[in-house]
Amino acid sequence: MHAYRSMTCAELTRENVGETVRLSGWVHRIRDHGGVLFIDLRDHYGMTQVLCDPDSPVFNEVEKVRSEWCIRIDGNVKARDESLINPKIPTGEVEVFVRDMEVLGASDELPLMVFGDQEYPEETRLRYRYLDLRREAMQANMTLRSDVVASMRKRMWNLDFREYQTPIITASSPEGARDFLVPSRLHPGRFYALPQAPQQFKQLMMVAGFDKYFQIAPCFRDEDPRADRSPTDFYQLDMEMSFVEQQEIFDTIAPVLAGVFEEFGGGRKVDAPGDWPQISYRDSALWYGTDKPDLRNPIKMQDVSEHFRGSGFAIFAKLLEQDGTQIRAIPAPTGGSRKFCDRMNKFAQAEGLPGMGYIFWREGADGMEAAGPLAKNIGPERTEAIREQLGLSVGDAAFFLGGKPAVFEKVAGKARDVIGEELNLTDKDRFAFAWIVDFPIYEQDEETGRIDFEHNPFSMPQGGLEALEGNPLDVLGYQYDLACNGYEIVSGAIRNHKPEIMFKAFELAGYPNEEVIKRFGGMVNAFKYGAPPHGGCAAGIDRIVMLLADEANIREVMLFPMNQRAEDLMMGAPSEPANEQLRELSLRVIEAE
Amino acid sequence: MHAYRSMTCAELTRENVGETVRLSGWVHRIRDHGGVLFIDLRDHYGMTQVLCDPDSPVFNEVEKVRSEWCIRIDGNVKARDESLINPKIPTGEVEVFVRDMEVLGASDELPLMVFGDQEYPEETRLRYRYLDLRREAMQANMTLRSDVVASMRKRMWNLDFREYQTPIITASSPEGARDFLVPSRLHPGRFYALPQAPQQFKQLMMVAGFDKYFQIAPCFRDEDPRADRSPTDFYQLDMEMSFVEQQEIFDTIAPVLAGVFEEFGGGRKVDAPGDWPQISYRDSALWYGTDKPDLRNPIKMQDVSEHFRGSGFAIFAKLLEQDGTQIRAIPAPTGGSRKFCDRMNKFAQAEGLPGMGYIFWREGADGMEAAGPLAKNIGPERTEAIREQLGLSVGDAAFFLGGKPAVFEKVAGKARDVIGEELNLTDKDRFAFAWIVDFPIYEQDEETGRIDFEHNPFSMPQGGLEALEGNPLDVLGYQYDLACNGYEIVSGAIRNHKPEIMFKAFELAGYPNEEVIKRFGGMVNAFKYGAPPHGGCAAGIDRIVMLLADEANIREVMLFPMNQRAEDLMMGAPSEPANEQLRELSLRVIEAE
Repeated sequence: MHAYRSMTCAELTRENVGETVRLSGWVHRIRDHGGVLFIDLRDHYGMTQVLCDPDSPVFNEVEKVRSEWCIRIDGNVKARDESLINPKIPTGEVEVFVRDMEVLGASDELPLMVFGDQEYPEETRLRYRYLDLRREAMQANMTLRSDVVASMRKRMWNLDFREYQTPIITASSPEGARDFLVPSRLHPGRFYALPQAPQQFKQLMMVAGFDKYFQIAPCFRDEDPRADRSPTDFYQLDMEMSFVEQQEIFDTIAPVLAGVFEEFGGGRKVDAPGDWPQISYRDSALWYGTDKPDLRNPIKMQDVSEHFRGSGFAIFAKLLEQDGTQIRAIPAPTGGSRKFCDRMNKFAQAEGLPGMGYIFWREGADGMEAAGPLAKNIGPERTEAIREQLGLSVGDAAFFLGGKPAVFEKVAGKARDVIGEELNLTDKDRFAFAWIVDFPIYEQDEETGRIDFEHNPFSMPQGGLEALEGNPLDVLGYQYDLACNGYEIVSGAIRNHKPEIMFKAFELAGYPNEEVIKRFGGMVNAFKYGAPPHGGCAAGIDRIVMLLADEANIREVMLFPMNQRAEDLMMGAPSEPANEQLRELSLRVIEAE
Repeated sequence: MHAYRSMTCAELTRENVGETVRLSGWVHRIRDHGGVLFIDLRDHYGMTQVLCDPDSPVFNEVEKVRSEWCIRIDGNVKARDESLINPKIPTGEVEVFVRDMEVLGASDELPLMVFGDQEYPEETRLRYRYLDLRREAMQANMTLRSDVVASMRKRMWNLDFREYQTPIITASSPEGARDFLVPSRLHPGRFYALPQAPQQFKQLMMVAGFDKYFQIAPCFRDEDPRADRSPTDFYQLDMEMSFVEQQEIFDTIAPVLAGVFEEFGGGRKVDAPGDWPQISYRDSALWYGTDKPDLRNPIKMQDVSEHFRGSGFAIFAKLLEQDGTQIRAIPAPTGGSRKFCDRMNKFAQAEGLPGMGYIFWREGADGMEAAGPLAKNIGPERTEAIREQLGLSVGDAAFFLGGKPAVFEKVAGKARDVIGEELNLTDKDRFAFAWIVDFPIYEQDEETGRIDFEHNPFSMPQGGLEALEGNPLDVLGYQYDLACNGYEIVSGAIRNHKPEIMFKAFELAGYPNEEVIKRFGGMVNAFKYGAPPHGGCAAGIDRIVMLLADEANIREVMLFPMNQRAEDLMMGAPSEPANEQLRELSLRVIEAE
């Protein structure tokens, strides 16, 4: 017989009654029912009820066992009494009467219970992660993550992509965030960096002719911690293809992701890739107040400036006399009550705006009637024109924000979320996707007026070299994101593979050629030797698993995460190095003053 | 039509004759045959011959094209003349007459030719890796590596293992080598380490109840460079299981590896896992002079001390009077000539030994006759007894080494290799495997007499706590390697999961409990909370791919390797950090004096 188990704790059924079996696992719970000991014995696969009474030769030992001890038992499988059958678990029709037992690993008193739903401080959970991970929800999240990654791999292989590992100890890849540095022992004073993304390497793979690349890639950024990201690293499904245009990237990756959401979405509706809209960056800002819209929420904001220009609502009318201002409406179907409208107005105030004007439509004495101070100020004709533009009716409302979009847009987007939420317009059981396209290549710093890359400098400008001759702020890139339920889950681009366009693009952002060669020399040099047109994208695995597992904290979907101070309390990282180590690295720590 | 290609450069056949097609790829070679330009157009998948004469509207542009330019062509598929058919490539029956062409990426003059077999210095190859990787052999090695890793994953999944990613930015995991350190910005003066292996984390996974784990794991060691290893990192197929004994690990991983060797071995014979011998560490040293024997070579050394004790060969006879000495024979079937024996003797001298005595057997006047000085000294009876023990016959030879095995064993192993090689006894077209088992837990430093762990401190001693009461040097571990063709490709152990045995094991090696807790606290603490018995192993992926690709240099099977000085010349790593970066990390570089 196997030294530890004849089967797992998930396998026994009525078929096994009468057999002698061997099981190993953890004591999930032990109860004493009138001198009979009942143990829920748990392993990775499931749970089996084992019991022991004074007739058992090992009763005295079993009595000593406590929660989370790891034990091996031998025993006889018995059918449970009809009344004791547990239909919720596969082994619920049987129990095992213990004849022999061995303690494989005893346990000290537990700092954290595995059984039950008690909440513990995150510090406790991370310090005793090996206990925390034994909990059912964590086992489920980690196996989900593993299965999602496996599914991604299989789907990419099925599309004839190969996975290639790019270096982890390498040079800085300036993606805009802070690098983790690794001091070199052999080259005193010099440092490697951990890659912020495999961006340059995957592009070099294309220059090297590999045609289709993917990688489940660790990415390292020394970022200040936040609940929804790890302070050290995250994982991407990273891919790149040669000889492609933007649409082909979409057509390639969309079915992969839709497939993953279908497979692990637990029955929630997944929009079909053919139905994923392509929304320009500008439209997305206008309609949703964000470049990662949540399309489960049907609300689409609109520019209603014309209705307020020269109107009796002086605040908006005056605003519109300034350059670059706009009045935007958030339609709120079924939101047509003063109470709701006032609450939303307060929300906007809490977010730092003067408030949101509103109109709502109700049944009046003479049919439909528009209510709210705004409606009075602009008069019935303009009010009606707004209602028609927004497609609203009795019982609905609309909110209005005015000024420079850059100032109010973010709050507008939040208000849209809250309205969708509060009015139950947002379909919770759905994954809704949208491609956001036509990102601008450049942005202008409001204060300095300086032009810089909006995202990264690797995207091909639409219109190529010619487009770079005009106003940089008008240049759009073949650059895209995929939004899902309000989160960016993919980002990518058709790359700028022509050295002359790349140097010009950098020049506009104020980088002289020498600087480009210094910072991106590896890649720019490569482009001089017959670079193919290429593009790709990267999908955020942590985020996707969070969406699937319905978790808001990234640490719920990572095995051994750092805490928010970027410490691993269990392993004791970071720690003070030995003097010898620092000496070997030619480094000295500067004491804080 | 697709912007770049209607098919790849590997797809056209006689079936396509008459079609208009679009191809993109690199100009592998361009030749001018009497005013007709022939281009071998290459992409990742294959090669197509395209041609262009002055009738083509783009002849003038095509004339300008050079090797490794990336181009897109449109053209008509034609059948080649019977005499020009190239049966070696799938597209060899057709050619494409160019009607339109676009230069997608021109190329500067090449520092390295992709076409042809010219050798380049490694520095050139690494600096222009994207060109080097375009070469056929490199494309084959990299796709082989990718396919090997994919196959490993599929095989592990089929055995119900899940892959889990363990942290890369973490605490030091003292595996005996030097850590790469990563300074923490948030915690000045403290450092993370890159893991030398996921050893502790995979064991924590078992304590957390995950039962079956694997990972294609990057491992980081700051090692002094060597041709057959990377100076920074390498990859392992790392696995661990709970509730197992040693044999089950073997039964699990052996078919995975045998399968991979079968799949990618190119028809070379792969010994079936059932035939892989289990050889104790001590026997392996005795028989093969190494713990990674090459079993393609049938030679098995033997202890022949008894035949020399008190014999007329005074050197050996005297040697044997000292403690711990031995005379060992290397049988050399078909090596029975003075010329060969002398050559081997010289080999031993070149390796720093006084030489190897030998006997060889030839056809004499009265039948078989033993020749060589040794035979004379010990006389015919002892000589015959040796021949019988070694199972040799006319035409064979035997070599003899004497002294303390620790002194001559390594050379004996090398001599065995050379003899097998020179006598053609070693079957080159075979992958021969052997489990090496029963490694000692401890070793003694010859000079200091200090006892330390022979390998790592995580293995379970055979006999458990009791075994640790006796002589530490007699304690064997449940620790094993798998050797293939003279290389260690797997290493593993049943782990020591009991805190009391672990503390005792460390105590014997001179580590007080506080030190154990300081260095391995994360894991040792975990073992106090119901640790299951567990074990596993790790297979070296780089080494396996090297064996399959028949490459002796690890850089031939890595995409973007460092050079032997641990530099990436293409990306410029390591490099000097900005002062600002050092300031953020509270570090100062100590200038060399």
